[in-house]
Amino acid sequence: MTSEPVLETLRAFMAERDWQQFHSPENLAKSINIEAGELLECYQWDSDADRDEVAGELADVLTYALLLADRLDLDPEQIIRAKLERTGRKYPVEKAKGRSTKYDRL
Amino acid sequence: MTSEPVLETLRAFMAERDWQQFHSPENLAKSINIEAGELLECYQWDSDADRDEVAGELADVLTYALLLADRLDLDPEQIIRAKLERTGRKYPVEKAKGRSTKYDRL
Amino acid sequence: MTSEPVLETLRAFMAERDWQQFHSPENLAKSINIEAGELLECYQWDSDADRDEVAGELADVLTYALLLADRLDLDPEQIIRAKLERTGRKYPVEKAKGRSTKYDRL
Amino acid sequence: MTSEPVLETLRAFMAERDWQQFHSPENLAKSINIEAGELLECYQWDSDADRDEVAGELADVLTYALLLADRLDLDPEQIIRAKLERTGRKYPVEKAKGRSTKYDRL
Repeated sequence: MTSEPVLETLRAFMAERDWQQFHSPENLAKSINIEAGELLECYQWDSDADRDEVAGELADVLTYALLLADRLDLDPEQIIRAKLERTGRKYPVEKAKGRSTKYDRL
Repeated sequence: MTSEPVLETLRAFMAERDWQQFHSPENLAKSINIEAGELLECYQWDSDADRDEVAGELADVLTYALLLADRLDLDPEQIIRAKLERTGRKYPVEKAKGRSTKYDRL
Repeated sequence: MTSEPVLETLRAFMAERDWQQFHSPENLAKSINIEAGELLECYQWDSDADRDEVAGELADVLTYALLLADRLDLDPEQIIRAKLERTGRKYPVEKAKGRSTKYDRL
Repeated sequence: MTSEPVLETLRAFMAERDWQQFHSPENLAKSINIEAGELLECYQWDSDADRDEVAGELADVLTYALLLADRLDLDPEQIIRAKLERTGRKYPVEKAKGRSTKYDRL
């Protein structure tokens, strides 16, 4: 059991390997796409997937996403909340309820 | 200021709109890819990008990633730590330090 | 040397393996993303990449793209030309020349 | 009706706008991912999609794929055939027929 915040663990892991030099925002954005593709591969031919495999690929997406946030001094929770507010305005409950339609066609 | 965990906020937002019905694991994996592509678009022609735009797109990636974890009953921090351990074994410090080479060529 | 059109070769390859059953448009769209991610991996940490590796990954992207076009009865050259015409209207030479700016900001 | 090869049309379009300067292999690989994501968006919540929209997004994927091939002096048909041969060896008909299993698990 660890009580160290996960971001600290990630930073230490990268520092130990001297990998921050590769983690430009652009490279991290590419890495998120690469790992997102590997995650999607779990569902390539089937809507079911092995949960453990998904966990491993999703972890990679999350890791690079947290590293990009850290690199740009962005707080993950804060940007999620801020975006959710904007999304809420584009998709008001009374119009969007139960529909997957894009906002510009609602 | 909110003290509600961000996952609770996300769940309430989706429930209010009755959107969980669209959030199959496969659809969430597709959504992560779509949003990762929009994030990459910030860096399409340039290694610099507008920080606010990046924040918005990164928030979308994180949102769908948290929803997928939630849907599969996975703890984001736990899967990140578990994957980091496996990565650590594939990239021992003494071999990987300062190198971006893939493990099977180290 | 072959003179058989490449689409015929692709169709025969898939029919021989009875793989068309997996090639729904949605699965092909996912596959294009997955292969695009593998292509991007060639450039993950570096703007240079091994040409042979790129060729192999680009071939996968093209293969699935041709299969999707075939599945939807779309002619690849025709849709490229049609889209280019629309792009040309959004990016008139006099405004877009030498600039990578997106059309809605030109 | 045009009889000019589509690659010539693409090259002329880009040259007219002086856009080749942005088309480094890396930027084209990113662009393929971005457009692949937009294509996938057609199938985000549904396995059906509007054929015209798909045509437009697929055209973008193909366009950037052809530009990348051109940039690296690769012949699209030739690399597709070469890759298909390698795939054929990894997935021999007698083992792969009617199965979507990945080769390392066949």
